[in-house]
Amino acid sequence: MLKEVLLGLLTGAVALTVGILLGHFAINKGTSEPEWVQDASQDVDEGIIKKLLEELDNIQIQENLRELTKVPHMATTPGDEATVEFMLKRWRDPETGLDNAWREDYNVYLSFPNKANPNKVTVVDPSDKVLFTVREREKAYYPEQDDPEVVQPYAAYSPAGNAKGKLVYANQGKMSDYALLNATVDLRGTIAITRYGGEGRSGKAINAEKYGVVGVLVYTDPNDINDGISDESKTYPHSWYLPPSGVERGSYNIDFGDLLTPYLAAKEDTYRIPKEKIRGIPPIPTQPIGFEDAYALICELDGTDAPAAWQGGFNCTYKFGGPGFKSTSHFNSSDVQLNIYNSEEIKPSANVMGIIRGSVEPDRYVIYGNHRDSWVHGAIDPSSGTAVMLEITRVLGTMVKEGKWRPRRSIIFGSWGAEEFGLIGSAEYTEEYFSKLSERTVAYINVDISVFANATLRASGSPSTQGVLFTASKQVGAPGTTVSVYDNWIKYYNRSSPNYGLIPNVGFLTGAGSDYAPFIHYLGITSMDISYYYDRSQTKARIYPAYHTAYDTFDYASKYIDPGFTSHQAVARTAGNVLVRLADSLLLPLNCSDYAESLEQYLDEAVKAFEAKLINIGISMDSLKNAVQLFRKSATKLDAVIRDSNLAKETPLKARRINDQLMLLDRAFLDPLAFPEKYAFRHVIWASKSSGVPTFPGLADAVEKAEGTGLKADWEQAHKHLSIVTQAIAGAAHTLDDVI
Amino acid sequence: MLKEVLLGLLTGAVALTVGILLGHFAINKGTSEPEWVQDASQDVDEGIIKKLLEELDNIQIQENLRELTKVPHMATTPGDEATVEFMLKRWRDPETGLDNAWREDYNVYLSFPNKANPNKVTVVDPSDKVLFTVREREKAYYPEQDDPEVVQPYAAYSPAGNAKGKLVYANQGKMSDYALLNATVDLRGTIAITRYGGEGRSGKAINAEKYGVVGVLVYTDPNDINDGISDESKTYPHSWYLPPSGVERGSYNIDFGDLLTPYLAAKEDTYRIPKEKIRGIPPIPTQPIGFEDAYALICELDGTDAPAAWQGGFNCTYKFGGPGFKSTSHFNSSDVQLNIYNSEEIKPSANVMGIIRGSVEPDRYVIYGNHRDSWVHGAIDPSSGTAVMLEITRVLGTMVKEGKWRPRRSIIFGSWGAEEFGLIGSAEYTEEYFSKLSERTVAYINVDISVFANATLRASGSPSTQGVLFTASKQVGAPGTTVSVYDNWIKYYNRSSPNYGLIPNVGFLTGAGSDYAPFIHYLGITSMDISYYYDRSQTKARIYPAYHTAYDTFDYASKYIDPGFTSHQAVARTAGNVLVRLADSLLLPLNCSDYAESLEQYLDEAVKAFEAKLINIGISMDSLKNAVQLFRKSATKLDAVIRDSNLAKETPLKARRINDQLMLLDRAFLDPLAFPEKYAFRHVIWASKSSGVPTFPGLADAVEKAEGTGLKADWEQAHKHLSIVTQAIAGAAHTLDDVI
Repeated sequence: MLKEVLLGLLTGAVALTVGILLGHFAINKGTSEPEWVQDASQDVDEGIIKKLLEELDNIQIQENLRELTKVPHMATTPGDEATVEFMLKRWRDPETGLDNAWREDYNVYLSFPNKANPNKVTVVDPSDKVLFTVREREKAYYPEQDDPEVVQPYAAYSPAGNAKGKLVYANQGKMSDYALLNATVDLRGTIAITRYGGEGRSGKAINAEKYGVVGVLVYTDPNDINDGISDESKTYPHSWYLPPSGVERGSYNIDFGDLLTPYLAAKEDTYRIPKEKIRGIPPIPTQPIGFEDAYALICELDGTDAPAAWQGGFNCTYKFGGPGFKSTSHFNSSDVQLNIYNSEEIKPSANVMGIIRGSVEPDRYVIYGNHRDSWVHGAIDPSSGTAVMLEITRVLGTMVKEGKWRPRRSIIFGSWGAEEFGLIGSAEYTEEYFSKLSERTVAYINVDISVFANATLRASGSPSTQGVLFTASKQVGAPGTTVSVYDNWIKYYNRSSPNYGLIPNVGFLTGAGSDYAPFIHYLGITSMDISYYYDRSQTKARIYPAYHTAYDTFDYASKYIDPGFTSHQAVARTAGNVLVRLADSLLLPLNCSDYAESLEQYLDEAVKAFEAKLINIGISMDSLKNAVQLFRKSATKLDAVIRDSNLAKETPLKARRINDQLMLLDRAFLDPLAFPEKYAFRHVIWASKSSGVPTFPGLADAVEKAEGTGLKADWEQAHKHLSIVTQAIAGAAHTLDDVI
Repeated sequence: MLKEVLLGLLTGAVALTVGILLGHFAINKGTSEPEWVQDASQDVDEGIIKKLLEELDNIQIQENLRELTKVPHMATTPGDEATVEFMLKRWRDPETGLDNAWREDYNVYLSFPNKANPNKVTVVDPSDKVLFTVREREKAYYPEQDDPEVVQPYAAYSPAGNAKGKLVYANQGKMSDYALLNATVDLRGTIAITRYGGEGRSGKAINAEKYGVVGVLVYTDPNDINDGISDESKTYPHSWYLPPSGVERGSYNIDFGDLLTPYLAAKEDTYRIPKEKIRGIPPIPTQPIGFEDAYALICELDGTDAPAAWQGGFNCTYKFGGPGFKSTSHFNSSDVQLNIYNSEEIKPSANVMGIIRGSVEPDRYVIYGNHRDSWVHGAIDPSSGTAVMLEITRVLGTMVKEGKWRPRRSIIFGSWGAEEFGLIGSAEYTEEYFSKLSERTVAYINVDISVFANATLRASGSPSTQGVLFTASKQVGAPGTTVSVYDNWIKYYNRSSPNYGLIPNVGFLTGAGSDYAPFIHYLGITSMDISYYYDRSQTKARIYPAYHTAYDTFDYASKYIDPGFTSHQAVARTAGNVLVRLADSLLLPLNCSDYAESLEQYLDEAVKAFEAKLINIGISMDSLKNAVQLFRKSATKLDAVIRDSNLAKETPLKARRINDQLMLLDRAFLDPLAFPEKYAFRHVIWASKSSGVPTFPGLADAVEKAEGTGLKADWEQAHKHLSIVTQAIAGAAHTLDDVI
């Protein structure tokens, strides 16, 4: 009986165990965790970051660049079209491409010289005999410069026309330069020669016209670009410096985007303003020339010695006034004549777009972009950036195609067209998809010229991006050093933060130098601009010397900018790391308290520079101070909410809510009516300004104007701008506060 | 042995069963469903809707109204302050109140008459002897009208000043009226008497001034308000009609919001424009009067017979011209004199805010609002709406306090101040919290005058709200009938929908008649305006006759507008139902395909009215047609995504994604630069317009202007507006399309 009992117990025990196992594992609980719970709580995978950094290859970047710079690829030329095809081929590659890629064309207003009838700048004597002709092409050191597709140096959007007059040297062509000059010289009917720098390209001509100047020449002074070097034996191809015949081309306009379709995407049927209504372009014939020719003109000028600040790199004293050439010159009593044959055309220009669809939040976008068009071969500008972008898409695309990775959020890559003519491709894109992009874009990363020089990282961006830029740059080794990009960076550009102590200095995006402008200024999308940059103790060059010339070639880039392409690689690793963190992190790596620090810094500057003046006129800055305090308080509160959360365990709607607050922070600073005179500048903190005080732009410009005029109406405008920025900051603070 | 075996088997079977049960229920699976999964997938609870409808009580509404209308409560008066306290008390009630309630004050620019020195309108003979004086107060039928707090009838924002001149009758004071009159009468130096209707209040004076008119009187013609009845024995208190001495007060301004702080919330330190820069207010003294006095003046006028369209309800022929009184009149050769003593003041005005925090998506807001200020006792305008709002908050608040319910999304209630002076409280609120509200608001429900009359529901709103308005109105019984509010509504106001056949007609929110304006036009927030309304076969009154007079009292409302308060209750039930559905539905009840239908309707009208004219001038409407087609296609696609989803089972981020698309749809139509001349109108589909064609406002106005002038520049503006609306519709379509 015992045996039976034991057997029965055993049977029972076995059955119980089997039952328990069956019950636990074989029967699906009605409330078992749905599959998506895991996905929704997934954070960035450091293994993926590591793999990305390993895979990003300098030689691949080099070969990308070689391919991209085979021929000149100015916007809408056959060379540009070839790069469109190249990008599409790469992004559609079944093994290394993206989920999808396509082109989007806009019909944009461009300006070109006339190949059959090149622009001419000459010195003509009173009998109209030509004594001197400025070169029409840059000197060829390699066959590349002789490529018939190399566009003649010109000032895009300068009107066609003939101008003749006595030459005067007008320094940088600022209003103050002409004003000073005009105090002793009657500028009416003259031709002004100005050097690059200190004033926007078209500004030099717009200012000139106000004083009756009839034509403008612009050149690059050896002091500004070549650290004073002008001797041909010491310039490219012997060094990175600009050869004497090199000419910086450029777009001579102030507003960005297609000039005929303000705020509207330039489609076929889109309304176009009459050409006469275009603002911000030269009203008089304008032409850039090389310093070789500028030397031949400037050193022959008559007049008293120009002020010290006006002197440049030539071995003669720059003269003030005249007008015209000195009596001892072979140009004596001659005029300078401009014959400009530029013409405008509406042409289709393509953006190339590529995407990786997000797995968890496909309706959140991280956008990474660069323009594709160049002036000539554009090895550095912009192909160094495109070469990096293509290497990032190769590595990410491969992981996606192999099924090893898919980002949490969607990633959009943009290869913009016609940037050189005024950020046109990116601007039209933001106009066409305004609402969609405004609602969903987490951040925009711009890598245009990826390597200016090989000394250090340089990054600018919304203050909230500082943290992710630091995280990423700490994980990448700085080429030619044993330290990280971060540790190298802090040696070159740093600042003392009240919160962090000494840290690398992330610049602010206050201008419109590249395609980040429509994103940060027009859409209020948190943006970054990333590159490798100069050691300023080694050079004072305005920019790398071959900029916008026929010498910006693969040869130049690989010999003098980044031999071995390791700085390109460092940029690819840093920007790629930032990109993946923005796309994959459960909590967006955007820090609102860092934004508070920048606002406090701006407030301090504003108080220092303007408070006494404002109080004097009866305007209090207290409400602005309160708004900045409120912002700090709200940011601290949101940071506490984040600290006290366990987002991976809580409802995904909580992470989404906080991420929306962080994502939309820059959007809260937009005011479409704040700067009616500045096209598409809507971000009241980072808009461009003329004031030199590093603070809120509307307030700074308005106070300085009011100080100048002393007019009541101008002081009222200062008060208005104080209220605008106060409301924007308080409004942004409200978005960081408790959501209800 | 069999027994043992059987016993053993039984033991085993029992043990197995126990084991299975233990295994299934007693051992917690590591991957069991987190608690929030259930919450996140919760849909609207029809039981809660049912309970809400049951609890909303007509007698409670009646008592709310009695309390709210005890004293006159014009903005910023002691009576207004008493209603602030009353709202706060109710919303802070521990048993029936909301989660939180508070007041927010703005310092707003208002205009009042002078109690010590009332405005005067007199007829004076050439020796300045006063022959006739217009009454300064309305006749008292009850002590209410004698309350010293009843403000003298006046035209808010009319300037103070004295004007004297010959009287002319100018119909409705439209530009065309003055133009016609001016063709035979020299209007310079005259006083114009105009009737309400046909032109905005201040427009009557602004137009007049252009013709040299020096003062304006405005009265309510018995034909326009009383179905022709003017006999005192047939007007209130004998019927709902306006007594002969009744005067419609009103705010004489065009722009909404505080007039001194455009686009800025009117805080203490906010910049204020100089008073001279205020636009849209009367440039000349203006005063409203009753028809009793208007009769005494108009029927004495000289001139030929006025056109038929100018005739009104008096038993005399309205005359055209003069100017001045007829020679047989006792007023012969007399002038009319206006002595206006209005003055402007900046005063603190309160919004009262109350909230219920959302449980799942607290960062999504459904806003429900109405203004609190009246002109006098304001029983109908606005207290009928406030009485309804308080009943809704009582019922919802009680459920919250009892722990029976909490909405998925947050609900914000707003009791706006100073609406009568130009939607000031709501406008300042949207300016101060612009970003937060833009990012998070699902919809705004406005119930101002909740009952104009007791015949039928009337609703206006974004097209996407049609479905939820129908769902709600089908669940509510129409008072005095055996059918639903929906079935009753369709009898009075209907249209034929290509998709649904005959349905009730939901109007469009194209004007700025109440506090929905800053939400829909400035912020692009999907909005609704809900009320009970007239049987148009019974009355042609412009509006309920006691509107803005001292007769708009509890007595009037309870006797002649809604005896028994059952229409109030029907509005409470319908609007409350809509509110809870918007707050609780897993999928937002906003339909994008219904929006497509409205755009198609507008397109048809535009093509019919304008295409031939545009083609004639070389402008194609094809891109607009394509944009509307694209919108339809994208809406159909999103509807298919919704249909193919099981949102309760999928990641909550999917419902959130789709809901964001629906929530932000109206936002996509905003263009802050489309209508620079129309303050805060940014919605390119619903902005106000002067054209009578029911279509896209910018296009319609621009084409009509161009037709009138024939100027090339005006046709270019028409093309521009065509491009603006095309881009807005295409841009909105992109937001409905695949998210990536």
